[in-house]
Amino acid sequence: MINKLIEKIKATNAPIVVGLDPMLSYVPEHVQKKAFAEYGETLEGAAEAIWQFNKAIVDATYDLIPAVKPQVAMYEQFGVPGMAAYEKTVSYCQEKGLVVIGDIKRGDIGSTSEAYAVGHLGHVQVGSNSYAGFHEDFATVNPYLGSDGVKPFIKVCKEEKKGLFILVKTSNPSSGEFQDRLIDGRPLYEWVGEQVAAWGADHMGDSYSYIGAVVGATYPKMGKVLRSIMPKAYILVPGYGAQGGQGKDLVHFFNKDGLGAIVNSSRGIIAAYKQEKYASFGAENFADASRQAVIDMVTDISTALESV
Amino acid sequence: MINKLIEKIKATNAPIVVGLDPMLSYVPEHVQKKAFAEYGETLEGAAEAIWQFNKAIVDATYDLIPAVKPQVAMYEQFGVPGMAAYEKTVSYCQEKGLVVIGDIKRGDIGSTSEAYAVGHLGHVQVGSNSYAGFHEDFATVNPYLGSDGVKPFIKVCKEEKKGLFILVKTSNPSSGEFQDRLIDGRPLYEWVGEQVAAWGADHMGDSYSYIGAVVGATYPKMGKVLRSIMPKAYILVPGYGAQGGQGKDLVHFFNKDGLGAIVNSSRGIIAAYKQEKYASFGAENFADASRQAVIDMVTDISTALESV
Repeated sequence: MINKLIEKIKATNAPIVVGLDPMLSYVPEHVQKKAFAEYGETLEGAAEAIWQFNKAIVDATYDLIPAVKPQVAMYEQFGVPGMAAYEKTVSYCQEKGLVVIGDIKRGDIGSTSEAYAVGHLGHVQVGSNSYAGFHEDFATVNPYLGSDGVKPFIKVCKEEKKGLFILVKTSNPSSGEFQDRLIDGRPLYEWVGEQVAAWGADHMGDSYSYIGAVVGATYPKMGKVLRSIMPKAYILVPGYGAQGGQGKDLVHFFNKDGLGAIVNSSRGIIAAYKQEKYASFGAENFADASRQAVIDMVTDISTALESV
Repeated sequence: MINKLIEKIKATNAPIVVGLDPMLSYVPEHVQKKAFAEYGETLEGAAEAIWQFNKAIVDATYDLIPAVKPQVAMYEQFGVPGMAAYEKTVSYCQEKGLVVIGDIKRGDIGSTSEAYAVGHLGHVQVGSNSYAGFHEDFATVNPYLGSDGVKPFIKVCKEEKKGLFILVKTSNPSSGEFQDRLIDGRPLYEWVGEQVAAWGADHMGDSYSYIGAVVGATYPKMGKVLRSIMPKAYILVPGYGAQGGQGKDLVHFFNKDGLGAIVNSSRGIIAAYKQEKYASFGAENFADASRQAVIDMVTDISTALESV
């Protein structure tokens, strides 16, 4: 799947991923109204609203982008109907040829991580049948529990040709509280990065490993160090746009081959119509605003990469 | 909710929690057969089987125990129908008066943690209505992202009178890989423990904080240190039984008041009928075997605590 992701990045010339993190407040009123008319102001109604919202944005952008990253929390907050909308979104994006990165940040002891891996990336056995519950192509994983919390995910990835992005240095303001603490003179995130590189070395696609890392755009200097620690890891870079990261902050996340990083924007794309810059589209044309925001993001990053 | 948990621990004289982590392989054949007859060998069939399995165990043990801890991964592996079985299990246990600890180990950047907190412990707004998606009483949280990944959970707990158990030192063999690394001469888990104590100090029930910690039974010496670092935190102790922890390992997790810890057993209780010790019950009477295993676990821990 890492090979497919890289092919698609090359084909679209867009090292970006659209974060499908639909807060109900992002969904234009006419979309909400229609969903509530059908299902009422219920969890089912909310799930229908975010699904229709996602679908319109995917339809308007899928030819420009290699991948999407639905954040499962935004669906999980709507209970079981929300999880159904998540699965429906994953399926639809895959039908459109997009690589789907499930932003699930799971991680537990071995047998439990195995269940998560099976549910999100693999197949579960039920009698003589097997089923893929949420069937994302990649998943994000939390490393706090160490190797035996991560290895069951790696095993399933190997069997199913899927991939991981393991949290190394997250984009949020307080990520340093534990991640930046010095251990033998080096911050924890570097030790995690080394471990990601070690896991990845045994699990290679053609040119990059299918065990990647998450490093926030908001920490460009750390991104540069981590790039050199994990030369074969694809880096998923959140924090661009709404969280403060800009194109020029991103250049050090890439390798000299122009590859090695994929930059996520969520709010900045899916709620573009709410920004002054794209207000002229109007709420009715929210998906067209998202398309324009994708084009602008790709230009911003390409310009920054060319000026290196 | 911490007050209710402590009241129930006192009333049952059982500082234990039953981990409802139903692998399909734990579910006796007659239960599976019945579920598959109704729903086929499908995700729905698997979800029905684990739900009926849970229900029987809860019916057989609820008068002896204060709480249950469903591990969401075991449900999530069966996709959307699995998540529906999870919610149904949470509801049923609450109807039976049990405190429900959702073992979800979520944790993300602020806005995302907020969505998880709302979905699992709080209420989500849909138009003019609000809904509680999974409505557990406590949730486990991963601290790797630092304060702004945890605080949204604390905020919802405060509003809803719910509680947390934050991962400090996990029970698995490789938990030391990152958690034991020394920072300024002290292991990372102690720093996390100090932070849990600090978060907890501002969020007190009558005698204990509703911000608790997870510390594995498999690391009793570390449990002793963490007990003193976090005197007001309730400690959720996994790793008893199948993972190797024993009653005598647990005494240091408790305070002198006999409170302060709640010990989880999953496999050891719910799949008791598969152990030689309880084989005489037979698969048909799996729930009675679970009841006996609860009684034996309480005796083991009580004996250990009395001999201190």
